[in-house]
Amino acid sequence: MTTSNNQTKQQLTPTQRTQIKRVPKRANYETQTIYSILDEALISHIGFTVNNQPYVIPTTYGRVEDKLYIHGSPASRMLRTLNQGIEVCVTVTLLDGLVLARSAFHHSMNYRSVVIFGTATLVNDTEEKMEALRAFTEHIIPKRWQEIRQPSKQELQGTMVLSLPLTEASAKVRTGNPVDDETDYDLPVWAGVLPLQIVPGKAIADDRLIEGIEIPDYLQNHPLNQLKTTSS
Amino acid sequence: MTTSNNQTKQQLTPTQRTQIKRVPKRANYETQTIYSILDEALISHIGFTVNNQPYVIPTTYGRVEDKLYIHGSPASRMLRTLNQGIEVCVTVTLLDGLVLARSAFHHSMNYRSVVIFGTATLVNDTEEKMEALRAFTEHIIPKRWQEIRQPSKQELQGTMVLSLPLTEASAKVRTGNPVDDETDYDLPVWAGVLPLQIVPGKAIADDRLIEGIEIPDYLQNHPLNQLKTTSS
Repeated sequence: MTTSNNQTKQQLTPTQRTQIKRVPKRANYETQTIYSILDEALISHIGFTVNNQPYVIPTTYGRVEDKLYIHGSPASRMLRTLNQGIEVCVTVTLLDGLVLARSAFHHSMNYRSVVIFGTATLVNDTEEKMEALRAFTEHIIPKRWQEIRQPSKQELQGTMVLSLPLTEASAKVRTGNPVDDETDYDLPVWAGVLPLQIVPGKAIADDRLIEGIEIPDYLQNHPLNQLKTTSS
Repeated sequence: MTTSNNQTKQQLTPTQRTQIKRVPKRANYETQTIYSILDEALISHIGFTVNNQPYVIPTTYGRVEDKLYIHGSPASRMLRTLNQGIEVCVTVTLLDGLVLARSAFHHSMNYRSVVIFGTATLVNDTEEKMEALRAFTEHIIPKRWQEIRQPSKQELQGTMVLSLPLTEASAKVRTGNPVDDETDYDLPVWAGVLPLQIVPGKAIADDRLIEGIEIPDYLQNHPLNQLKTTSS
């Protein structure tokens, strides 16, 4: 994903939908923060409504500058529905740690989340569509795109890509220690944070892999191998 | 969480909402599968609709038998809204691996997800409420509940607990290798699965921890330390 350094400190204006009301001190509207959460996470949860029935579907995504792209089969109900221009809510959550307080009441989690509101637009332009497809792959496995067979004309036509502007979005971040009632600090109970992190295991080669092909460096050095927990 | 062995093989009946239409071979309606995903994951994404606007909020939860509990402050807009009996969609996703195909088009992810539909009910009964609070703590840190200061009457009153029946739910599971176009298997590209797993780091003691309190065994032996990836 492109990290736009010149967007450091750029703030989104909170709207009625993105203004964080619960624990507002955890709110963050900086594009830098929002983009970094989107780039680090792998899965979004996409919410949309049909006949007053909400649906929440887990989906991968890609980011290019101030646009979030989602994609799938043109037969996907979610994509077909979103293509009608209805309101969507995309939420991305990174779980950074379990927060163990001395009382049950103050147990919590450290997390970084982003909530995006807006309406999606169909991407018809072939160049933008290809760029979005590149973003999907590079988002989950940086440096993979150059090595694989890129989409054929038929595959490109058989993929629906929608774009969502990252203009109405907010981040919410909790870090650090538990906050206990003052009278509970004397309790002889272990308290603190158990940091959590998504970690890759050993890569498993496909049964039909051609002999002699080694695991690529970019997989050994996948960003998930290099992240540090931010739980404390 | 309680695992009810006698519910092995019990199936939920798919409804119009839970019938999986995209890639139906990945669908699973067994309560055993659904419960095990709910018990292993730590975060749900809760979808609800206000004035045609969908919201998706990340939230912890607890399961007791065939009920899912969520909780929070009575000031929470989400809980107040759900307490009006509107339709809710709760989605829980475990990401098990990145699936690297030889073509961009066939890249995928291994995952296990659950989608639950229904309406939530306020838990007023003190005993059930306390049992739900126990479930929240035990869900994220088994064996923690017995050691911590349990909720006071005031805290119990200051916590809103909602219950959602696990009767209209489905799981969706992808496992295993990439599936490439037959003509792509000759390409000299590494293909396979990069398993992913949430792993705890080193526990970080609270600054104000009483001297001499050791990290408890149940934290060292947290279930997340013992899980095996199911990506292959």
